[in-house]
Amino acid sequence: MADDVLFEFLHMEIVSHVYKEQASREDIDKERVTCVSILEGMGFRVGQGLIERFTKDYPTFKDDLDIMKFLCKDFWTCIFKKQVDNLRTNHQGTYVLQDNKFTLLTPVSSGKQHLEEAPNYLAYSCGLIRGALSNLGLESVVTAEVSLMPSCKFQVEIQKT
Amino acid sequence: MADDVLFEFLHMEIVSHVYKEQASREDIDKERVTCVSILEGMGFRVGQGLIERFTKDYPTFKDDLDIMKFLCKDFWTCIFKKQVDNLRTNHQGTYVLQDNKFTLLTPVSSGKQHLEEAPNYLAYSCGLIRGALSNLGLESVVTAEVSLMPSCKFQVEIQKT
Repeated sequence: MADDVLFEFLHMEIVSHVYKEQASREDIDKERVTCVSILEGMGFRVGQGLIERFTKDYPTFKDDLDIMKFLCKDFWTCIFKKQVDNLRTNHQGTYVLQDNKFTLLTPVSSGKQHLEEAPNYLAYSCGLIRGALSNLGLESVVTAEVSLMPSCKFQVEIQKT
Repeated sequence: MADDVLFEFLHMEIVSHVYKEQASREDIDKERVTCVSILEGMGFRVGQGLIERFTKDYPTFKDDLDIMKFLCKDFWTCIFKKQVDNLRTNHQGTYVLQDNKFTLLTPVSSGKQHLEEAPNYLAYSCGLIRGALSNLGLESVVTAEVSLMPSCKFQVEIQKT
């Protein structure tokens, strides 16, 4: 459906805008905020807002794993139109979410040409996850790793408080 | 549904980002591109992409009015989750689309405090309309007007070629 791509197209535009904008002011502002952190920040705030809507009528979660499962199924499906393909954990606060065909990477996945730009296309989503977890009471560090597009792995490390 | 707000939240973030970013470089770059034109440009490209998907399996349009009706119903519903409330035309290439409760204005519609920022929240949508029409072969000028939020009017002037 066309409305699925509304979000994807807008996301592409933002990545491209933030990237160009930073490139244009590079020599002016040495200590510039990087593209990745701008996009991550946007994702964080949107993730916070979304999770509030999502969990409004939802029972409380048993534990961290229960929250992660919710993110991998309901949250992911709503945003990316599919579930996470694989969730692994070391049971010590580290979770790896593998998505074999990540929606926001598919438009830039032809060949290896965009592999080095991949982090730009993942930063917003890292922020989404971190924002959602934050509103559920879990502070975390979220990073993403791509080896073969459009497959990618998000690593979530829950911070002990 | 929560996935309706995914686009709205992201849109809010972009408006806020573009606005802050322009404010921060104001004194550096006098001939800066305005927020409105950046947002309009993003909307334009997204509108072009969307209309391609939308009209893929669609019969051809009879005339300009037929295209405008399609925008007011199918296109609007898919993006903004409701139809345009009123469409008027002077039959000479000018169309006025009135939306009495415009989705992207509702979050900033409490009182009159944000009235002067309203153009920032409409620029992207003006671009969407212009981009969609452009891909259907109609060059246009699209402007928006707000008197009482969250109601607004989009004026479309088709350019004769």
